[in-house]
Amino acid sequence: MERPLILVINDDGIDAPGLRSLIDTIREIGKVVVVAPDIARSGTGHAITVRDPLRFEQIVKEDNYEEYSCNGTPVDCVKLAENVILKRKPDILLSGIKHGSNASVSIIYSGTMAAVIEGSLADIPSVGFSLLDYSLDADFSACEKFVKNITLAVLKNGLASGVCLNVNIPAVNGAHIKGVKVCRQARGVWNEQFDEQKDPRNNSYYWLKGEFQMLDNGQDTDEWALNNNYVSIVPVHVDLTAHHAISSMKKWEFNA
Amino acid sequence: MERPLILVINDDGIDAPGLRSLIDTIREIGKVVVVAPDIARSGTGHAITVRDPLRFEQIVKEDNYEEYSCNGTPVDCVKLAENVILKRKPDILLSGIKHGSNASVSIIYSGTMAAVIEGSLADIPSVGFSLLDYSLDADFSACEKFVKNITLAVLKNGLASGVCLNVNIPAVNGAHIKGVKVCRQARGVWNEQFDEQKDPRNNSYYWLKGEFQMLDNGQDTDEWALNNNYVSIVPVHVDLTAHHAISSMKKWEFNA
Repeated sequence: MERPLILVINDDGIDAPGLRSLIDTIREIGKVVVVAPDIARSGTGHAITVRDPLRFEQIVKEDNYEEYSCNGTPVDCVKLAENVILKRKPDILLSGIKHGSNASVSIIYSGTMAAVIEGSLADIPSVGFSLLDYSLDADFSACEKFVKNITLAVLKNGLASGVCLNVNIPAVNGAHIKGVKVCRQARGVWNEQFDEQKDPRNNSYYWLKGEFQMLDNGQDTDEWALNNNYVSIVPVHVDLTAHHAISSMKKWEFNA
Repeated sequence: MERPLILVINDDGIDAPGLRSLIDTIREIGKVVVVAPDIARSGTGHAITVRDPLRFEQIVKEDNYEEYSCNGTPVDCVKLAENVILKRKPDILLSGIKHGSNASVSIIYSGTMAAVIEGSLADIPSVGFSLLDYSLDADFSACEKFVKNITLAVLKNGLASGVCLNVNIPAVNGAHIKGVKVCRQARGVWNEQFDEQKDPRNNSYYWLKGEFQMLDNGQDTDEWALNNNYVSIVPVHVDLTAHHAISSMKKWEFNA
């Protein structure tokens, strides 16, 4: 049987240790093609590049393994892989491992998960992995087992059309992780406090920084699972319709 | 009574005619503060700027009217407005008028709608307006009536917590618009065909281009409404959980 074709993307850039951890874990499972941004592209959300040309170059070519670096966003990387780089549709798309959480509302800012959503739009079963440790020297050793098992489970079971997975892994020693929970996205919000500074000409500039605030007490959420040392898996889709709001709004008078 | 405070954002940049049309329509309704990107930021999705400092400058200051230009994305503009520029929480956030559609799946790539979603996360009733005409000299005259009526309806009725509105307006003469429909987001996808070109050193570069493909025959969608000369309103929220997928996935064996 042909080895499954695994497309690997990330948003921390091609040199990120989290990407290397993901690659090391999955090379034994299939043929791996990595298409990653040349620099860190964290927080790019679902951005695409329309005003500048895109470029990519092949960095590594071995048996069952290729690596490409691209000047675009994670979503650009997916589109280039699908349409230009790969000769056939991948059997699975894996994104990450992100340095830092993509649980709760962080998903909407996330380049890692944007790549995953883009994969699902092309009907590729797609999974994003994030470790709850932002540091560059994060320890990814606890991730290996879960990345492998979840990847194999998706290759075996498939995913419903339009559904992809957001997997977050607590930053604790693997022995303390209690298992895997399938969850819903917790309600939460990032509250910003901008850091104002002055340049040499005395003009103000601002650094964005924020603090996550939970707005959800449910025990069926990703945040609850992570806080209780479970790996969280949220099945994600791209229908943003607030279906519950449609009927009440139909009564509004717009032409008053 | 104090005039409502209206925060205006866009993603086509501070000079875009669509923004000017929106401003002209709503200045009579309230105190307007515009915080817009200094250049076009179309297709930036929910990107935020974390690796570069943010700057803004006041361009116009009049009675009940202020305008600021910012070097960030539409979402950065919302965060700066909320946390640095405005002295109180706005009564409503309006984004647009976008040159081009944000119906169906285009919402996930849209900077216009990312600003709207960001507003709703801060509990500000938020509405995005888009006209289905990408050209710079699009005719926004048909929008005026709908922008005004929908803005007034939201100021009067409010929006449920976490819900914001995605309004798209067909590019036809106003006399041909049949009315307003509250809809769900149509299923659809952008299919890419990259345009490959060569630079003077004979290296390839690629322009992203795509074609929208409908995957939905429903008559309750935004695409149906727009194709039938209605203004579409989709109530939007940021819970990306595919709730229908949770129960079947709970049966998966992840620890095999």
